Amino acid sequence: MTDLSSYADLDLDRARRRGYPEAVFCAGKTPEQVAGIAAAVAARPDVVTLFTRASPSHARAVLEVLPDAVHDAGAGLLAWPPAEPAPAGGPVVVVTAGTSDLPVAREAMLTARYLGRRTEMVVDVGVAGLHRILAHLDTLRSARAVIVVAGMDGALPGVVAGLIAAPVIAVPTSVGYGAAFEGLAALLTMLNACAPGVAVVNIDNGYGAGHLAAQIAAP
Amino acid sequence: MTDLSSYADLDLDRARRRGYPEAVFCAGKTPEQVAGIAAAVAARPDVVTLFTRASPSHARAVLEVLPDAVHDAGAGLLAWPPAEPAPAGGPVVVVTAGTSDLPVAREAMLTARYLGRRTEMVVDVGVAGLHRILAHLDTLRSARAVIVVAGMDGALPGVVAGLIAAPVIAVPTSVGYGAAFEGLAALLTMLNACAPGVAVVNIDNGYGAGHLAAQIAAP
Amino acid sequence: MTDLSSYADLDLDRARRRGYPEAVFCAGKTPEQVAGIAAAVAARPDVVTLFTRASPSHARAVLEVLPDAVHDAGAGLLAWPPAEPAPAGGPVVVVTAGTSDLPVAREAMLTARYLGRRTEMVVDVGVAGLHRILAHLDTLRSARAVIVVAGMDGALPGVVAGLIAAPVIAVPTSVGYGAAFEGLAALLTMLNACAPGVAVVNIDNGYGAGHLAAQIAAP
Amino acid sequence: MTDLSSYADLDLDRARRRGYPEAVFCAGKTPEQVAGIAAAVAARPDVVTLFTRASPSHARAVLEVLPDAVHDAGAGLLAWPPAEPAPAGGPVVVVTAGTSDLPVAREAMLTARYLGRRTEMVVDVGVAGLHRILAHLDTLRSARAVIVVAGMDGALPGVVAGLIAAPVIAVPTSVGYGAAFEGLAALLTMLNACAPGVAVVNIDNGYGAGHLAAQIAAP
Amino acid sequence: MTDLSSYADLDLDRARRRGYPEAVFCAGKTPEQVAGIAAAVAARPDVVTLFTRASPSHARAVLEVLPDAVHDAGAGLLAWPPAEPAPAGGPVVVVTAGTSDLPVAREAMLTARYLGRRTEMVVDVGVAGLHRILAHLDTLRSARAVIVVAGMDGALPGVVAGLIAAPVIAVPTSVGYGAAFEGLAALLTMLNACAPGVAVVNIDNGYGAGHLAAQIAAP
Amino acid sequence: MTDLSSYADLDLDRARRRGYPEAVFCAGKTPEQVAGIAAAVAARPDVVTLFTRASPSHARAVLEVLPDAVHDAGAGLLAWPPAEPAPAGGPVVVVTAGTSDLPVAREAMLTARYLGRRTEMVVDVGVAGLHRILAHLDTLRSARAVIVVAGMDGALPGVVAGLIAAPVIAVPTSVGYGAAFEGLAALLTMLNACAPGVAVVNIDNGYGAGHLAAQIAAP
Amino acid sequence: MTDLSSYADLDLDRARRRGYPEAVFCAGKTPEQVAGIAAAVAARPDVVTLFTRASPSHARAVLEVLPDAVHDAGAGLLAWPPAEPAPAGGPVVVVTAGTSDLPVAREAMLTARYLGRRTEMVVDVGVAGLHRILAHLDTLRSARAVIVVAGMDGALPGVVAGLIAAPVIAVPTSVGYGAAFEGLAALLTMLNACAPGVAVVNIDNGYGAGHLAAQIAAP
Amino acid sequence: MTDLSSYADLDLDRARRRGYPEAVFCAGKTPEQVAGIAAAVAARPDVVTLFTRASPSHARAVLEVLPDAVHDAGAGLLAWPPAEPAPAGGPVVVVTAGTSDLPVAREAMLTARYLGRRTEMVVDVGVAGLHRILAHLDTLRSARAVIVVAGMDGALPGVVAGLIAAPVIAVPTSVGYGAAFEGLAALLTMLNACAPGVAVVNIDNGYGAGHLAAQIAAP
Repeated sequence: MTDLSSYADLDLDRARRRGYPEAVFCAGKTPEQVAGIAAAVAARPDVVTLFTRASPSHARAVLEVLPDAVHDAGAGLLAWPPAEPAPAGGPVVVVTAGTSDLPVAREAMLTARYLGRRTEMVVDVGVAGLHRILAHLDTLRSARAVIVVAGMDGALPGVVAGLIAAPVIAVPTSVGYGAAFEGLAALLTMLNACAPGVAVVNIDNGYGAGHLAAQIAAP
Repeated sequence: MTDLSSYADLDLDRARRRGYPEAVFCAGKTPEQVAGIAAAVAARPDVVTLFTRASPSHARAVLEVLPDAVHDAGAGLLAWPPAEPAPAGGPVVVVTAGTSDLPVAREAMLTARYLGRRTEMVVDVGVAGLHRILAHLDTLRSARAVIVVAGMDGALPGVVAGLIAAPVIAVPTSVGYGAAFEGLAALLTMLNACAPGVAVVNIDNGYGAGHLAAQIAAP
Repeated sequence: MTDLSSYADLDLDRARRRGYPEAVFCAGKTPEQVAGIAAAVAARPDVVTLFTRASPSHARAVLEVLPDAVHDAGAGLLAWPPAEPAPAGGPVVVVTAGTSDLPVAREAMLTARYLGRRTEMVVDVGVAGLHRILAHLDTLRSARAVIVVAGMDGALPGVVAGLIAAPVIAVPTSVGYGAAFEGLAALLTMLNACAPGVAVVNIDNGYGAGHLAAQIAAP
Repeated sequence: MTDLSSYADLDLDRARRRGYPEAVFCAGKTPEQVAGIAAAVAARPDVVTLFTRASPSHARAVLEVLPDAVHDAGAGLLAWPPAEPAPAGGPVVVVTAGTSDLPVAREAMLTARYLGRRTEMVVDVGVAGLHRILAHLDTLRSARAVIVVAGMDGALPGVVAGLIAAPVIAVPTSVGYGAAFEGLAALLTMLNACAPGVAVVNIDNGYGAGHLAAQIAAP
Repeated sequence: MTDLSSYADLDLDRARRRGYPEAVFCAGKTPEQVAGIAAAVAARPDVVTLFTRASPSHARAVLEVLPDAVHDAGAGLLAWPPAEPAPAGGPVVVVTAGTSDLPVAREAMLTARYLGRRTEMVVDVGVAGLHRILAHLDTLRSARAVIVVAGMDGALPGVVAGLIAAPVIAVPTSVGYGAAFEGLAALLTMLNACAPGVAVVNIDNGYGAGHLAAQIAAP
Repeated sequence: MTDLSSYADLDLDRARRRGYPEAVFCAGKTPEQVAGIAAAVAARPDVVTLFTRASPSHARAVLEVLPDAVHDAGAGLLAWPPAEPAPAGGPVVVVTAGTSDLPVAREAMLTARYLGRRTEMVVDVGVAGLHRILAHLDTLRSARAVIVVAGMDGALPGVVAGLIAAPVIAVPTSVGYGAAFEGLAALLTMLNACAPGVAVVNIDNGYGAGHLAAQIAAP
Repeated sequence: MTDLSSYADLDLDRARRRGYPEAVFCAGKTPEQVAGIAAAVAARPDVVTLFTRASPSHARAVLEVLPDAVHDAGAGLLAWPPAEPAPAGGPVVVVTAGTSDLPVAREAMLTARYLGRRTEMVVDVGVAGLHRILAHLDTLRSARAVIVVAGMDGALPGVVAGLIAAPVIAVPTSVGYGAAFEGLAALLTMLNACAPGVAVVNIDNGYGAGHLAAQIAAP
Repeated sequence: MTDLSSYADLDLDRARRRGYPEAVFCAGKTPEQVAGIAAAVAARPDVVTLFTRASPSHARAVLEVLPDAVHDAGAGLLAWPPAEPAPAGGPVVVVTAGTSDLPVAREAMLTARYLGRRTEMVVDVGVAGLHRILAHLDTLRSARAVIVVAGMDGALPGVVAGLIAAPVIAVPTSVGYGAAFEGLAALLTMLNACAPGVAVVNIDNGYGAGHLAAQIAAP
């Protein structure tokens, strides 16, 4: 399986066609396949390529081919070329309900940044202590799009949406146990948020949230 | 099926034995069966009997036998004898996220009252507008137990629990549509509330919530 | 229950505070309650109020109080005052996969319009015949936000997202049968869309989609 | 990520504000993050802090910073400072249906104790042999709140609730296999308990049960 | 569709082949089809035929053809020829947790009787008041098979199984609401019963339970 | 909504492009919309059009415009022009497990016929009496494709697949109750059939099964 | 935790009281706890004790205390004392659909044997090749109770029940993948078996099946 | 357990009887059992035998007995005798939505080949970039059956079915995360495909897809 075309059909022109580059979803690919893709990517430094859901062995495979790629191990993300594009468009604020939601939040933040947005992060401000989120109202209201990452009850995005005019991108996480059902509870909460203005993405999908935020906050 | 013993085994001594009287769950019973039970109840004015989940035809059957019974049609509840017992124990506050949660909230409030507690109600204070619940902090903090009734995202009980020292009894309702899944979403949210101190009962179970509040706020 | 405050806590200042007015969710409210709310609304012609999920009896209750309210029976929506605000911001395009998705699509379109956006609609362009959606590429690419309404397999939003740069708001509908599970299948499809840029809202939630589109396409 | 504020926003004043201290949920945090929090906790010996869902590596991280912390490995719990507060309020009785429910029961018992309640434990008294639970009626009836921990069919809390006047806090556990669905079966049983007076918490949530019991049995 | 063979392939020799006659499941059949089957049945008075899940219109169709058929409207059951066979084998005891479980219990009892067993019924002895079931221990222990019919938490079969040596056939019913999920909660409880000796049949399947009991208690 | 293009985008050239004509899914459309589509269809007698999932009011709407359309009320199907095409390709055999599965089976059979296949039907041969299906082995083995329609346990398709060389199209139906979960149980059985050669379609999807059979048995 | 009473309340008199001895469910217990129970068991050689769901470390703990215990590693079962009781009552036949169902089938067979029944086993006779099960009709018809163990589609028990007069105990197994959902598909199939006479137990619950068979086939 | 008949009942004559040979499902079998089956297979080189879902230890067991067996480790498949039969019938095209779907696609392709069909593969052409699938229209339209393998949203099979006349066999894969629910989302999408002509098999069931394709494309 040495020929790239036998396992992948890269879309390196997506950025030109659609405005945003393709990302490489690593889960389920062998490290060899990821390395083969990285080699093709190396020929196109004009396009920012993100490798998502990269395990340590995926990361090693990428870094061997693209040694200067940026790697955030917690987020399972690599970006190449390493330089972030100059920021344009409106600011994106990323909020987490708890510390355990950080890896997903970082995936979202880095995606938005590598797609060209300014970002800011507010951490550990879940609804069990409302004073925490209320202390950041100015930051929240300065954003063109707010990403809220939350597991367990997933209540924070609806609360934030009720406080601001910008759209909220809600990312349920698999943080929690028992009836959290790997993020299903948070997902349902967010889909049923009483406050309008909540856009939901898949459980743990920091990449999708960052991409959506970049589109909403586009110049 | 004219003999009561062929379809029911009443537990009219439960109040003496357990401290709280039995309630008659009407759903699934024929109006004739409910009437038969009401006739047996009529012989025991020393015990407060609640008829729950009573349809209009159930209610007519009860009222024919016990014409002075109190009937709250929205809540599907009847109580006999009609006089509420003198209140004892701590105050119980019942809170609703929205107007559509009122029937369940009234079932909870009336149950707590007929089991001997003082009650107060706060309505339509869902998390989409936080200022509404924050305006009632004093009332909430005066309670020995707070019942929070909410459908859709079910986020309110966790927010309330984070603001007070008393236990919160969370009642998910079937208010909502789509991914609310008839109250399942709210139920899961409440089971996963970030703030501890949230006791969950079945979807739309106002009776159970009122009973539990009466026990918690007992003298 | 004649006093509004006993069942509702209106938030008529939300537009000033958050930029968008509150909507009145009618499902689960009695027509009398809706009429009471309409009466309060009548005092505030400066705010656009939407009544959503209004059954015929809800609609009659509103129209008795606000006879000039606009009423779209299929969408279960009423708007008052009837005049649409002058459009501002970017265009919003609403797309349906099939004819049966129209009521939800109209709820979305009217919401976006009453919140101040220009809208356009493209109907019955599901993926079973790709030439239909491809024929509308120019319209799709002219939008600042695209709402895609689809039941059954819910595949259309992902396909659209792969064709344009603007964010896609995906609305699963309960159209279908069997393993469509009242919209659950379409919901899951949309949450798992291969193409990034898909923001999902609740099943049949045309109102939420229209609101979100208005926020994304805000000036 | 050396600065605490980059990943956590501790609420060490919660005890003063709400009456009960915050707990640190370790799952999903790195040992380094937990150690950082422990260091902040070390400055506040006036507050009891519990670390819940602590894996062995989390525990090591805490014990390195707070070497005298109490650690119950089975329950995944650490407490600091180690001295239990002087008991106040009513007694809390913790009951398990089977031996395999013990870790969760111990988490509940220790939480109630560190929040200031007297506790007693009754083990392995599931409904398959009713004589076992009936032998403990006096203990059960002496409690201000009873925590019942059960997996598999989860039938015990409803049986206990039918025997006593105090509220029962039901904790479903993930003990069982097949159609136990990791505790879902027990959870549903408890939510549908025929006897009123059953307050349900999340699957395996011993901490939440202990906290709720402490609130109910508060002085 | 006047020819029986165009819609049904009756198995009127099943009794000879398998020992128990076929039953006619009416749900989903038109009254005309049921009438056609009844006409074929009329030629075979040597075989007991049961018509199950018969709506009023199904029943009318049967009774027009077989006017002396026995009809239990609550149970949706008809039997023809009307005479019960002489009882043989061991006794079957049918137990209900609540009054609302009676229709299913009657379907079970009548099925067992028309398949040739002696039956006895014990009603409304749910686990919320254990003294009720304990008062019937002698009856329960006299049975060769016990059918326990219960909705809501479905806890009764497991409790009964722990008290007797004979097998318990557990029939979950759709009695309940909310998280009872139309009998799913009771079904799961029964499948996870701590006490061995519990045989589970489908929700509301009184016919299947009666059949199984007849087989277990066969001479 | 009088203009067809405002609610539908017919694909009347699909037969030419893809080999099979488009069908009109009526559920969720208003009778007026269906009538409008029928009017457009009337201009194209060269194409066979099927109207599926047609309620009585949909059927009336079609028949008013196309009075000679064939209408099978049980199957909810209309076909126009009424003449079946001359049969070509291999034979299709449709099998039902029970009488209640007939409406779906007829939808499948008529679809296959109007798409140009010879069909034969075998009814009421569920696995509870194996001799019934075994009596039809010759018919089954003569088919180029066999459609097996079954509710409840859905076991028949796997049994048939183990007996023949041709592919089996399995159609789960919503026949059954309780844990049949509206056809979900049968669907899962079919997806897990031990015998290979089972192609599954949606619950109650007779149209899809007939279409697929026509494709498999194409000349 | 050295005192047995701190973690278990053995019911070694159950055999005398209920006719069948208690089994020790090892899953979720520590090896130390299992060893402690084994030590208590050692004092009662008059009672057969089964240890179920024993991992290798549980087995080692038992064998250290009761070195002559019988151990079937595949089935995760230990029995002590090792001698099987003299058989009484009717024969029990255990049937598997596939080879992968053997461990559960052996648990069932050994349980029935240690509770005093004669047993016979028929393996790998799933419905994909009907000739296999039909070849064993005489054996099946000789049984007082038949246990059928099947994963994937779980179709075999219903087929067997249609062929014999004795009750069938259906044991779904977690054999399979994908939409087998860890045995859920087989469980649902069995609950919906078209043939009456199918008693269902929990997924992979060989012990429960063997126990139930022993009760049904009791002298 | 040394005797083959104690754990398996091989059906090596299936090819003669049904036209296609039996496959050996390895999951859940011990390597010893698989080796025993391989030994029996070795005596029948006239039949092609596939070993599916073979782990590395299963594969080693087979290869020790049948050293020239073909082994595709990614697909978990072995075939013996190693020579592919001469192709007959129509061509089968296998399509994957993404690179991660390749192992399942290879299982399908190899199965179809060893059952005697010509195959071709098209990879990584998911709907996020429609131009990719459209570039292969000629290949797709040349097939007698097309297998489409897709995880995540599972949208590709419906799109392909809308473009061609041949039947599409849709294989959902467990590729994805979160609300992909191990392939459930893709499965539901495929069952609800708007385009008719989609035959669905179990999640990750490449073998079943290949077998079905071979049957459809049979000479």
